[in-house]
Parts: sequence; structure tokens; C-alpha cells
Amino acid sequence: MTDTPYLAVDLARLDRNLQAVAELARNAHVDLRPHAKTHKTAELARRQIDSGAVGLTVATIGEAEAFAAAGFGDLFIAYPLWVTAHKGARLRALADRVSLRLAVDSVEGAVRLAAELSGAEVLVEVDSGQHRTGVAPESAGEVAVAAQSAGLKVVGVFTFPGHGYGPGHARRDAAAQEIAALSSAAEQLRDRGIEPRVRSGGSTPTIEFADSGVLTEIRPGVYPFYDAQQVELGVCGFDDVALTAVSTVVRRDGRRVVLDAGSKIIGADRPAWASGHGRILDEPAARIVALSEHHAVVEYPDEYVPSLGSTVRVVPNHVCTAVNLVDELVVGGGAGEGGEGEVATWRVVARGANS
Amino acid sequence: MTDTPYLAVDLARLDRNLQAVAELARNAHVDLRPHAKTHKTAELARRQIDSGAVGLTVATIGEAEAFAAAGFGDLFIAYPLWVTAHKGARLRALADRVSLRLAVDSVEGAVRLAAELSGAEVLVEVDSGQHRTGVAPESAGEVAVAAQSAGLKVVGVFTFPGHGYGPGHARRDAAAQEIAALSSAAEQLRDRGIEPRVRSGGSTPTIEFADSGVLTEIRPGVYPFYDAQQVELGVCGFDDVALTAVSTVVRRDGRRVVLDAGSKIIGADRPAWASGHGRILDEPAARIVALSEHHAVVEYPDEYVPSLGSTVRVVPNHVCTAVNLVDELVVGGGAGEGGEGEVATWRVVARGANS
Repeated sequence: MTDTPYLAVDLARLDRNLQAVAELARNAHVDLRPHAKTHKTAELARRQIDSGAVGLTVATIGEAEAFAAAGFGDLFIAYPLWVTAHKGARLRALADRVSLRLAVDSVEGAVRLAAELSGAEVLVEVDSGQHRTGVAPESAGEVAVAAQSAGLKVVGVFTFPGHGYGPGHARRDAAAQEIAALSSAAEQLRDRGIEPRVRSGGSTPTIEFADSGVLTEIRPGVYPFYDAQQVELGVCGFDDVALTAVSTVVRRDGRRVVLDAGSKIIGADRPAWASGHGRILDEPAARIVALSEHHAVVEYPDEYVPSLGSTVRVVPNHVCTAVNLVDELVVGGGAGEGGEGEVATWRVVARGANS
Repeated sequence: MTDTPYLAVDLARLDRNLQAVAELARNAHVDLRPHAKTHKTAELARRQIDSGAVGLTVATIGEAEAFAAAGFGDLFIAYPLWVTAHKGARLRALADRVSLRLAVDSVEGAVRLAAELSGAEVLVEVDSGQHRTGVAPESAGEVAVAAQSAGLKVVGVFTFPGHGYGPGHARRDAAAQEIAALSSAAEQLRDRGIEPRVRSGGSTPTIEFADSGVLTEIRPGVYPFYDAQQVELGVCGFDDVALTAVSTVVRRDGRRVVLDAGSKIIGADRPAWASGHGRILDEPAARIVALSEHHAVVEYPDEYVPSLGSTVRVVPNHVCTAVNLVDELVVGGGAGEGGEGEVATWRVVARGANS
């Protein structure tokens, strides 16, 4: 018996999601290198590799260390690290034990990385419209040449189309910009005699557009679990959601109930277009109208309001930040019945590995 | 050398904040029972007790267990728990080793608690306007009588004026409602022959109004560290902020920089009235305009834009959720120089203790 609130995984749904995206990648003739920041667990990463993934993507050196320690041998840190001497030592230790691929998005960053880990394989990060990290596609050649000259081995380009997280046509538009940016950046490298054999993109909302001929690799993160954002963007349905926060009704006032799952277990992510602070798996018409650290205030439609003490499954808005709040996931076997038929607990081995 | 991003505590500022609130409580003749959910660390709790706190407030049984294990003997779980058999067993084990005070806000919840832990000391939670948990003041008497009849020992009433987290007059208005609600609820108990000797309130934004004659106890949480919300509400200044996320500039484009501190270290809390996703300690004019898991996008004023690779201190919007993301805090001695002169690391012993 696990006390609420806790995060429960529905293994049947999870495996179905893994198979579906593995098949999508096979049909699109692209490599699948899932982003492990979503789940941070060795058991799930193993299932991804077993279903056909070529390796893992991670966001930090700490995540790479955790997955290397768990026996995964092909890791891409998809982040333009600023490599201090101490981070350089950590990268060298990693490179000694796994096949490591790194990211650069500036001449200065490339020079610094080369000084710490000469000969490292790198991809140039390209900005496809999110305007976060990454160089403009037209500058990709310059950074690639500088990286090459500094002693790095440039093997391609990558982007993250994070601006595809939006309503309406955002996904389709971002996918088109992603392909255009990678295509343009790849051309820049070729013009300078560098073959961009890896052209990597594909967030969960944009992977359905993977079959472009430009991409060679996709890096979706959220798809094993999905979450309320993906449901509200139309990427999946409630029936695909494989992770929920199992919670208890601690107060009920008419159609308004308070659950013991708050921002410390489902996270506080809330994009402007979201309907609330998460969703209720078994009652799509309910809305989470307020969230504190240990309280979710939910308004139900008239027909069905759960009673005091009953169990309610909350779908986090953003599953990556929810998983990062817990030390373990409670894994259940039943279709749609997470929390019942508990079969295992999975350690979130890279939890909190921010640096 | 700690790699960025990490959470750094400025010990000189922290101790100044602890002393100031301890003095406020003494002057107002109220007990100080700080909410330990903010820091979740034994070292800081010890400093609170040493500066005059009568005990600790916590939000969950798990937090109570962590602080009991660390040697703290007087704990109030300020949450209307729905006590299952398993939670009941945990509460009994706690009650065997510490002085424990619990919360009720419904007749059903009180009956259930009494069945699991007969004779437990409880406060009735009252809603003073946040409309989360807690009964309306006029129902406090009914719940108190039911709790007493069920076998609990009702010692008073409490409220959390969380609606004081708002701009303009919100703090002052919430403080007035807090006093009115506790006063009315206390009267309800007295009318039924139950002496409400504990009348507990006082969030960090409202403690300056503690000297009302109604309150006997205040439970502020955030004041040891403060955060960007408190700065923007006018509760404190930047000079009082004792915890920051130390981060590195990983990209710079004109006045726009990207830091490696994202929502997985500063949290995603962002009330509608906040100026952004956090603040920059050393540049009040800068704005965090976008936040992802490992990126904060910051727009600087023209005069001062930090260079690639330099260190920037980020003030989280909500320090309670930031601390809950890390396993340890890096404690430095210097005034305003967190991260330099590192003197200790403090384990976040109750991190993730959600149930």
C-alpha cells in the first residue's frame, strides 16, 4: 500500500506508447534517440533501447553519468554546455566509458569544449524558431568550421522545435521550420566540406512529421507517458496517458474538491493556453482551478463529484517536471488501472541531476 | 567547486532574517512555529528553534517523520489529512516519539482521525478567504464539537491566509480577514465550551500584522530565504534574499542571455502578477522572459549584459518549490556572496516527502 500522493505508471499503456513511436521511427527511416530527461529511470530507458532506440538523449552531464552508471553506452548531451575545468574532467571520465556526443552553439563554447575534450563528436545546435539556444541556420557553417579547427569532430546538426508546444497550427508550423532550419544548416556545413550525417530533431508534438527526408534522427521525450499538455495539444488522447498522480480527496464543498496532489508532485508548469494546472484522468470535464504545494482545487461538473476520501488520478501538465519531483515511480500492470496491481517500483536514478 | 546550477544560501542574510522574525514574534507576544516545508533541512530548523521558535509546522506525515528523525520534538501537521489505516499507523508511531498536533476541517475527517489516533491534539482549520481547505468560521464550532465527541482533544483554530499573495492591498486585506476568521471561529468554540487556547495564523506576507491580540501563534515559512514573490509583493528587498540559484550564461545574443538554471532548479511557479519566472539578484531591471527545464531566457537592460560563461544568481519566484528540487543546499558565509566562501552543505532531508 503506497500512501497518496504518488506517481503511478500504467505499464500496458507505456509499452503501447513505446511500440507506437518505435514503429513511427522505423517507417520514417530515422533513428530514435529518446530524451531520457522525461523519465530519468533505467528500467524505462532499457525498454526504449529494447524497442529499437539507438541510444539516449540527455540534458546534463549528471543525467549522462546516471545513465552511464546504469549501463547505457550511447549518449547525446543535447545542451550547449559551458565547459569549466571541473565539467571537462567529468566529460573526460564519461567519454572513457561510453560513446558520447555533445553540442555546440558558439565559437567560444566550441573552443572551450575542445580544450577540455579534444576530438569529441559534436552536433551544432540550430535555432528553428524557439529562440532559446542554438545558432541561426545561416551561422551553422561558421560554428562548425570553428569547432572543426579547434579539434572537435562535427558530425551534424540538431534542433529542438519547442515552439511547437502551442495551440492551433503551432505543431505543424514548428515542424516545417524545424525541417527548413536543419536543411539550411546542413547545406551550410556541406558548403564548407563538412558532411552533416546526423540531422536530429523531433519533439513529441512534431515527430509525426518526421518523414521528411531531411531528418536522420528524432529525440522525443514525453511520448512514453504523455501528459495534459499533449492531450490539450491533440498529440494524444486521455487513453494514452500512462502516468498519473494518485491522490486523495481531502475536502469537498459542493462541486469543488481539494486533492492532496499539489505542485510538489505534479509540478507548477502551466502554459498560457492550458485549461488549468493539469487534468483529471477519469473526468475530462473537471478543471484544476488552483494549485498549491499540497493542494489541487478541482471543479467538477454537476454529474459526478468524488466523495471525501476517494482516490482521484491527476494528469500533470508536464510529465518531465513531475517525475523529477519523486524518488520512485509505482508501476502497475493493468490497462488504465495504474496503482492497482502494483508490479514494481522504478528508481528515478537521474532525479535532480541538474548539473 | 560545485558545478552550476546549484542552490546557494547566504548564511549572514539567513541569520539576519531568522532574528528579525523571532524578534517580531516576541514583540507581538505570539509563539513562532515556522513552516519547515520551505527549507526541509535539519540545520535550518535547528537555527529556528535556537532563535526562539516553539516548534515546527509541517505539511505532511513524511515531513514530520523526517524532522522527528532529526530530533525535533514538537510538530504541527497543518493539513487536514484523510487518515487511512496506513497513515494512521504512521501517525501513531510519530505520536509515540514527539509532541504532535494535527488538523481537522470536517466531521468525517475528525471521526476518521479519532479512530486511528484517539486523544490526538487537533486544531480546526478555518477558511479565511483563500477557499482551499478549512471550514467557514461559522462552522468551526460544529467541527470542534464533533472532534471532541469522537475523542480528539481540540486545542484551537488555525488558518492560512494564502490569498495575501497578491499585489496592492491583498496582504493587508488578507491579514484583516485572517484575524476576523480566527476571532469568529474562536468565539464559536467558546460558545460550545471549548477553549481555543491556540489561535494560529500568519504567512510570511501577513506576519507584520501579528500584533492583533487574537493570534497566539504565527507559522511563516518563506522568511528565512525570501524569494522573488516576496520582493515583488514588497515584503522584503533584494538585500534580504538569502537563497539563489547560481547559474552560468550558456548563450548570449545581444541583450538576451540564456542561463543553465531552468524549471528543474528554480521551479515553474509563476503567479499572474509576477514580472517573470524569477528575478536576477544583481540586476533588478533584468527579466526572465522564458523558462524551460534547463534554460532561463533573460532580457537585460542595455547597460549591463553578462558575458558568456559568467555566473549569474537567480532568485526563484517561490523558494519552497525550488528547495524541494535539490538534495542539498550549498551554504556560504559572506553577506550577499552566496557560493563564495562555502562553509557547508545542508541535506534537504524532507525533500520529496509528499505523503
